[in-house]
Amino acid sequence: MNDNALKANTAGITATLARFLVQSRYEDIPAPVRHEAARAVLNWLGCAIGAANHETIDCAWAALAPFAGAEQASLVGRRERTDVLHAAMINGISSHVLDFDDTHARTVHPSAPVLPAILALSEWKKLSGAQFVHAFVLGVDAECRIGISVFPEHYNVGWHITGTAGVFGAAAATGKLLGLNEQQMRWALGIAATQSSGLREMFGTMCKSFHPGHAARNGLIAALLASKNFTSSERAIEAPRGFGHVLSTKFDPTMITGDLGRRYELSSNMYKPYACGLVVHASIDGCVELRREHQMKPDDIERVELTVWPMVLELTGNKKPQTGLEGKFSVYHAAAVALLYGAALESEFSEAVVRDPRVTALRDRVTATADASVGKLEAHVKITLRNGTVLKHHVAHALGSLQRPMSDTDLENKFRGLVTGVLPPAQIEELIGLCWKVGELEDVGAIARAAVPR
Amino acid sequence: MNDNALKANTAGITATLARFLVQSRYEDIPAPVRHEAARAVLNWLGCAIGAANHETIDCAWAALAPFAGAEQASLVGRRERTDVLHAAMINGISSHVLDFDDTHARTVHPSAPVLPAILALSEWKKLSGAQFVHAFVLGVDAECRIGISVFPEHYNVGWHITGTAGVFGAAAATGKLLGLNEQQMRWALGIAATQSSGLREMFGTMCKSFHPGHAARNGLIAALLASKNFTSSERAIEAPRGFGHVLSTKFDPTMITGDLGRRYELSSNMYKPYACGLVVHASIDGCVELRREHQMKPDDIERVELTVWPMVLELTGNKKPQTGLEGKFSVYHAAAVALLYGAALESEFSEAVVRDPRVTALRDRVTATADASVGKLEAHVKITLRNGTVLKHHVAHALGSLQRPMSDTDLENKFRGLVTGVLPPAQIEELIGLCWKVGELEDVGAIARAAVPR
Repeated sequence: MNDNALKANTAGITATLARFLVQSRYEDIPAPVRHEAARAVLNWLGCAIGAANHETIDCAWAALAPFAGAEQASLVGRRERTDVLHAAMINGISSHVLDFDDTHARTVHPSAPVLPAILALSEWKKLSGAQFVHAFVLGVDAECRIGISVFPEHYNVGWHITGTAGVFGAAAATGKLLGLNEQQMRWALGIAATQSSGLREMFGTMCKSFHPGHAARNGLIAALLASKNFTSSERAIEAPRGFGHVLSTKFDPTMITGDLGRRYELSSNMYKPYACGLVVHASIDGCVELRREHQMKPDDIERVELTVWPMVLELTGNKKPQTGLEGKFSVYHAAAVALLYGAALESEFSEAVVRDPRVTALRDRVTATADASVGKLEAHVKITLRNGTVLKHHVAHALGSLQRPMSDTDLENKFRGLVTGVLPPAQIEELIGLCWKVGELEDVGAIARAAVPR
Repeated sequence: MNDNALKANTAGITATLARFLVQSRYEDIPAPVRHEAARAVLNWLGCAIGAANHETIDCAWAALAPFAGAEQASLVGRRERTDVLHAAMINGISSHVLDFDDTHARTVHPSAPVLPAILALSEWKKLSGAQFVHAFVLGVDAECRIGISVFPEHYNVGWHITGTAGVFGAAAATGKLLGLNEQQMRWALGIAATQSSGLREMFGTMCKSFHPGHAARNGLIAALLASKNFTSSERAIEAPRGFGHVLSTKFDPTMITGDLGRRYELSSNMYKPYACGLVVHASIDGCVELRREHQMKPDDIERVELTVWPMVLELTGNKKPQTGLEGKFSVYHAAAVALLYGAALESEFSEAVVRDPRVTALRDRVTATADASVGKLEAHVKITLRNGTVLKHHVAHALGSLQRPMSDTDLENKFRGLVTGVLPPAQIEELIGLCWKVGELEDVGAIARAAVPR
């Protein structure tokens, strides 16, 4: 153990974070943060269940099933059960397939690497909802703080931060559930650091979703190994050859240890109401709002004029989308479905809808103008009806932003939209109920089991 | 598949390497390279079996066994059987625990990430020795070429190249065994790239050995996913946000594609005769040689004078080692055991030997002088006997270097030294025999099964 003694350091960044994680008590977590945890669980489950039968998951499961262990944990939205490690990975991949999971205001998609790991472990070990919520809050804190400490330079060079920082979140959260002591938690963070990986080059392929699955499984392995005293560096985050310096040109460790236990990063979590890039959300919002207020029919509409942040047109300026994915990169299509259906969920970006003549007819009457004075999550929508009436709506902050969060009801509706067709209606409402009281469950595995179609 | 089409590139570095891997035939591999494969297998097996019951492996297996799948593959040197993925990981960790595995002259430890992955897969699928040797040669070629393309800058910044490049080797080799087509092989290399990880900060802890295990398992997962058409970038090595540019400040892609199929990197493989750092090897060599030639007894020796490369004293200048590990960092101890036992295997670096009065008495009579004109793998040894006789030996190239490779008999003896006590003598000789004819085996799993104590 001589080398370990040399590496031991109880005053560093890794050690300070490990101490906080180990010493934190559930009672320390403020009620609004606990409620945010329930919101995040509901949102995550919807995304994961909604994608559970996607081709990406079928491929991954076909590849890995021959090596699966005992049936310890559920695959959400599917009927197979598998070992904890594979459940963490497969559910982690499901989390991100739709690109519809949560986003921290300054860094990673927080839930995707953490929740799959702790749900699988908790189901197997029959842990309580309080333990689960506590571990989740801490895991998100660890991954977001580490992510912020290297953001944006680390991301700009090409790392997919949800993978690279997410593995720390999964290790911290599962380490908490396994009851690691401080030294073991330092080791767990170290074993996480040495597995940190994920390249942005993978964007646009199935591998993007692989990253949170990989992070969930690897973070869990880090905590499991540490629980058996598998040693690693105890300064893996801050050492000259540690995560911060090797994977980033900028590393600000005060972002990791500042206000520990006073500021919880889960409080800065955001949820997407629409199944496309954030920059389109304000335009959709304005259309949904005008439709609700005026109940006009598509044929009543002469033209729709959007005024948007200039990057909106660069990123989503496709006037004639042909596939579902292209539809997500068309602000014109997004506005049209918002006016036709009052929604922009995954189903509104199917190829059938993108090619539907009713949609294309309205889409062709939408124009968009760039305006540098308009913000990223802002839009002006102006609709001229055939009868000459002009309707206007200004969206200052898109729904889902920190300034205008989705309500609990919004999240429930998003959930229903995502899982309908996978779970029967009664089971959907049961699962929503379980999520809202997640912190009180005696056995949080009830949520995992209720996420499997009966 | 639109995004994949965008990322497809059949003229790039990744595509060229993938095409070579897929199109290569066993008949293309020159006989000396095939024989080198047998040597590497024998050397690797000795290291892995010798470490199989080390605390590191006990910890890792205790942590992961609850999640193991069907008994598809052997853990070498142990009695447990497990699924292919866990066997790849555990045997991968065993490979590197003793720091005694092979070394490519310009980059990684080649066998540790590749052989555990292909042995587990081959045992399960009952593949032939020819397939196994072919896949091994190709895997080593891929990982070494990718390693050289970023070496040494990538290593200097803090990456443990055996982990970061090793994952490509495991993916390439297992992808060959799975019969991937060119597109799938590009994906496999991409999925490998996005898992590339391992920090030098872990050196001195159990996590160093974790790296080849992690690489073996992850490379295998990359190939398995690709075999089910799980997509990734097809330019993952050379893209601006790919492996070469994100993980290194220097990237020379010609090192990957130059002389493909004409130069095999396995030909530049080196094996360590002694269980300590390479820089001590020349001094040990000289002592072993003088002992063999002159058969002197320890009490005959008045003093031993070494003249060495200056870094030898910086790295291994410990005059009073107390533990086995400290003994490995003492050129004085190494010279003493070489003169006393004619060997410097793991057993000569046990704590008992390091503290043995016969050893310490001789060690105290060893001196070492730095000389900038002496090379890294060179040493002058001068022994003055109590009767006044002076014996001298100059080691120009340490045994195990490319200039003076270990003979097949040397490798057999090293193997016997490592596995004695783990396997019974008859089984040891049987396994040596199997290794020399590995390329002719109908079912290469015979080697894996013979590596388990009966």
